[in-house]
Amino acid sequence: MSRKLQIYGDPISGNCLKTKWTADYLGVDYEWIALDIRTGDTRTDEFLAINPFGQVPTAVLPDGRILTQSNAIMVYLAETNDGLLPGGPYQRAQVFKWLFWEQNSHEPYIAGRRYRKTYLGHDDSKIDAEWIPRGNAALALMDEALGKSDYIAGDVLTLADISLVAYTRVAHEGGFDLSDYAAVRAWISRVEGDLSINPVPEAS
Amino acid sequence: MSRKLQIYGDPISGNCLKTKWTADYLGVDYEWIALDIRTGDTRTDEFLAINPFGQVPTAVLPDGRILTQSNAIMVYLAETNDGLLPGGPYQRAQVFKWLFWEQNSHEPYIAGRRYRKTYLGHDDSKIDAEWIPRGNAALALMDEALGKSDYIAGDVLTLADISLVAYTRVAHEGGFDLSDYAAVRAWISRVEGDLSINPVPEAS
Repeated sequence: MSRKLQIYGDPISGNCLKTKWTADYLGVDYEWIALDIRTGDTRTDEFLAINPFGQVPTAVLPDGRILTQSNAIMVYLAETNDGLLPGGPYQRAQVFKWLFWEQNSHEPYIAGRRYRKTYLGHDDSKIDAEWIPRGNAALALMDEALGKSDYIAGDVLTLADISLVAYTRVAHEGGFDLSDYAAVRAWISRVEGDLSINPVPEAS
Repeated sequence: MSRKLQIYGDPISGNCLKTKWTADYLGVDYEWIALDIRTGDTRTDEFLAINPFGQVPTAVLPDGRILTQSNAIMVYLAETNDGLLPGGPYQRAQVFKWLFWEQNSHEPYIAGRRYRKTYLGHDDSKIDAEWIPRGNAALALMDEALGKSDYIAGDVLTLADISLVAYTRVAHEGGFDLSDYAAVRAWISRVEGDLSINPVPEAS
């Protein structure tokens, strides 16, 4: 058994990248094991023995225990490495607010359209038409919040920024136009800088 | 300004009841302010001055600061009242896993169908057909977990149980049949007992 934390993830998945960026930012000593969802890497007997649900990201602790759900892995990494999650309960609740909101009101539409368009090759007519206004409502809400502070939950980088930037920075791949959301665009650059990750090229 | 925590909520909303049950279980001294979403109580100038998004639940701290998002309010209540959230980071991550999963993979389908059928009066044909298999997949996954332990994140009641029971106990109002999920049904009774809440009558 490995003595190091392992994270299984597919780099096309924002949910996986969230956990990788968090581990990198916090200086965690871990092994990244890249799987390709599209070629069935998460359906092998070997991987199903680790996570019977066949989902990534999956984190395996040095003692063999398993963690799943991207935002829960991020919370674990922050709590065990003392960073990206403020100390006071009110400020923590602001971070959690955005993390829950991301899963309920952002990811389903912003990541959902990207996956269907870019990876499944679905035409717009095959995707629920409500996802466009709902995704735009999420972006507008972020834009308003980011007009008031440099980071989504206040003045410092937290898990909430890493979680939300993962799919927001590739929103154009799902057909969302960020040109109306200036504060969101400035924040994407800021967070990419903080995380030392390269900007995503816009489709030409 | 009130010197007591206030929670604004509509008792038809499982998301609101989650926060009420958590506060009750933890013995928090708070004021519950019942609003009726359907008659516009969350759209009044008075309420929009408190929460510009017009959403419940909304918690107002004694100093006037606002908390939103049901699961984030629950985390705040647990962290400030020392209960329902285990101490160790791995066990906490298990609770967070289910809380995030609830928002992403359970609530959209289980609560979504209930709201449309029971409160908007929508016919099945007007609701995304995918919501039935997705809701059942969520119930099946819970049933498997609850076949192994009395509570969803292990052997003790946590926030994850309160969050998940809120809409699971009224799943039949959304057209889901719990008769195949014996472990889920036993767990609903267990959690209702722990929270001292009455069972929901099944539709006759």
